[in-house]
Amino acid sequence: MSPPMISSPMLPDPIALAQALIRADSVTPAPAMVFTVLAAALEPLGFAIDRFVTGEAPDGPVENMLATRAGTGRHLAFAGHLDVVPPGEGWTGSPWSGEVRGDMLFGRGAVDMKGAIAAFVAAIARAPRTAPLSLTITGDEEGPAIFGTRALIDRMADRGLAPDYIIVGEPTSATRLGDTIKIGRRGSVNIWIDVPGRQGHVAYPHLADNPITRLIAALAEIEAIVLDTGNQWFQPSNIEVTDLTVGNPAHNVIPARAAARLSIRFNDEQRGEALVEYIAAIVARHAPAATVTASISGEAFLTEPGPLSTLMSDAIAAHTGMVPDLSTTGGTSDARFLSRLCPTIEFGLVNATMHQVDEAVAVADLESLTVIYADVIARVARL
Amino acid sequence: MSPPMISSPMLPDPIALAQALIRADSVTPAPAMVFTVLAAALEPLGFAIDRFVTGEAPDGPVENMLATRAGTGRHLAFAGHLDVVPPGEGWTGSPWSGEVRGDMLFGRGAVDMKGAIAAFVAAIARAPRTAPLSLTITGDEEGPAIFGTRALIDRMADRGLAPDYIIVGEPTSATRLGDTIKIGRRGSVNIWIDVPGRQGHVAYPHLADNPITRLIAALAEIEAIVLDTGNQWFQPSNIEVTDLTVGNPAHNVIPARAAARLSIRFNDEQRGEALVEYIAAIVARHAPAATVTASISGEAFLTEPGPLSTLMSDAIAAHTGMVPDLSTTGGTSDARFLSRLCPTIEFGLVNATMHQVDEAVAVADLESLTVIYADVIARVARL
Ligand SMILES: [Zn+2]
Ligand SMILES: [Zn+2]
Repeated sequence: MSPPMISSPMLPDPIALAQALIRADSVTPAPAMVFTVLAAALEPLGFAIDRFVTGEAPDGPVENMLATRAGTGRHLAFAGHLDVVPPGEGWTGSPWSGEVRGDMLFGRGAVDMKGAIAAFVAAIARAPRTAPLSLTITGDEEGPAIFGTRALIDRMADRGLAPDYIIVGEPTSATRLGDTIKIGRRGSVNIWIDVPGRQGHVAYPHLADNPITRLIAALAEIEAIVLDTGNQWFQPSNIEVTDLTVGNPAHNVIPARAAARLSIRFNDEQRGEALVEYIAAIVARHAPAATVTASISGEAFLTEPGPLSTLMSDAIAAHTGMVPDLSTTGGTSDARFLSRLCPTIEFGLVNATMHQVDEAVAVADLESLTVIYADVIARVARL
Repeated sequence: MSPPMISSPMLPDPIALAQALIRADSVTPAPAMVFTVLAAALEPLGFAIDRFVTGEAPDGPVENMLATRAGTGRHLAFAGHLDVVPPGEGWTGSPWSGEVRGDMLFGRGAVDMKGAIAAFVAAIARAPRTAPLSLTITGDEEGPAIFGTRALIDRMADRGLAPDYIIVGEPTSATRLGDTIKIGRRGSVNIWIDVPGRQGHVAYPHLADNPITRLIAALAEIEAIVLDTGNQWFQPSNIEVTDLTVGNPAHNVIPARAAARLSIRFNDEQRGEALVEYIAAIVARHAPAATVTASISGEAFLTEPGPLSTLMSDAIAAHTGMVPDLSTTGGTSDARFLSRLCPTIEFGLVNATMHQVDEAVAVADLESLTVIYADVIARVARL
């Protein structure tokens, strides 16, 4: 049984706000205008707006916004991003139209994640004004994510702000709004293996040193690794070889170099750095002259089920009748940084069209998400 | 003890003929001019010249020449090619200069193998004119070798010519003229493995099918193969992976396709087609949807030591004091086709600079090779 939607000409409308945010084209890194639109919606609700720019070219500068409203009780923070991935070709209308056709609101960012930000702002207006609230909004989540959320975390620390709970508004729902909450994410590391050899003619292999032979031996051993078998909350950690590069046009030549790239998605039983050392040791045994470089995009995080996930599940169940899955699947998100502060979960719209052509959100889902977020704010205030 | 070089103004000079051949630029496929130069040297020696063109673009047309002189006794054929590989950049002088600097004659083709052709022609003039002699000269040995020697073999058959022994004038000597005769060559096959997969995001590997995983498993098994351990005349057969291709720029994407190329050099215990079937069966086990295509450049050949290699060794020993190695190493040559006709061996200049910048032959080696070839012609005539 859903309570009726509180409707008043004074309250911000999530549909209209989502449209206004979508119409402010904000391909990553997001320019300032879309932040101005959001700030204009938050100021009437009593929020103090702290906007600041971080980073330098080529990945910056990045716009960030920390919006805060004081109160008593548990401090709930909502984290999100206003940047979007490039629209690509083939849209039915303009990706920046924000138009409603039938039951759907179309536009880049509709589900990832301007729609959820609009729903949260609308929810604030519909929830009791007692507990402290923050919004941390970045403009570079879809890019390298170097200058956004991490800078916001520092900004909160500088200002003595310590949220008790964080909700990240990423589109976590799989097929129906409310079917999935994310309570963790796997970590991610990319590893590059570069094996030098000695070039030579295939007719005289003893005069050459085929780097492909060494690379295949290393990769075969790496492919046989079982990192773990997963656990209650996580799938098994997984290694994929995502690229092989030699580029040797000559049929009769043993090449001078062979390279591979790995992507490891790992659960909370692994650490990025240890994985890199493990891979490097295997490579070194087969190819002592090889170089192994790595980029750890994020460690795994887990917010074990507790008060936050319980009240979120209860709010979802109250308004949709569904008991959400507590999931840890999918790619990385900025929750990997935020979860170091306090219990952090992710919940938002249906992700079916995210990053795709004709990204769209059901108007009814935007309204339901507003109701659910408002209920979550109320439940945190009662803790 | 070398007999004195027979010197007469009437006899063709191997140095001058080599220079004339080099000056006729003949990057593969060789144009007609260089054949005209050679024909002009052979006609005064009593040879009938049969020139013909085979093949079509892009690998043809190819100039060929069959020069014959009748006689009684064993029919000796000399096989060679007048085309050369492209000179490349960085020569001290012009690659077509044929100039003598110090002790060396420079030019593309000096050792591979215009020098040897010039030496053989000069040798004919210095040897007894009794036994039948042929020269089979092609213009596409350095190219695909599709329209040259195989057409010459057909031409000889059409004309009822059946040589008893064939000498191929490739530069077989390693460091000193006469150190190596080739009595066989390994076969060669290139194999392409193309593994399709199902593209997907690394975060959802169960929805994808990584073709690299399958390819590595197949290649690891292929790398572990011991085809044979070699034998009295041959090195072990050898498999090299010469290229890997994926070309996936996206770190987070499992690619849709992975490919590899193999080069197998094999001895007379293997057959090209059986090797391809063997590899294809391994690939099919790991990647049932993969395609395996192959190009067999040539089967292995062996002319077991006999009268021809003995008289060649004796001639070399008589004039250089060295007993040549009977070798089967190195790349393929047109001897793989010719050896189907009769005992075929290869002997020629020092190959240190072949296919390289500043290709050069020692003037003294050209003269010694002339003496050795003349002795070989004489020894065949006495068989
Ligand atoms: Zn997002
Ligand atoms: Zn050659």
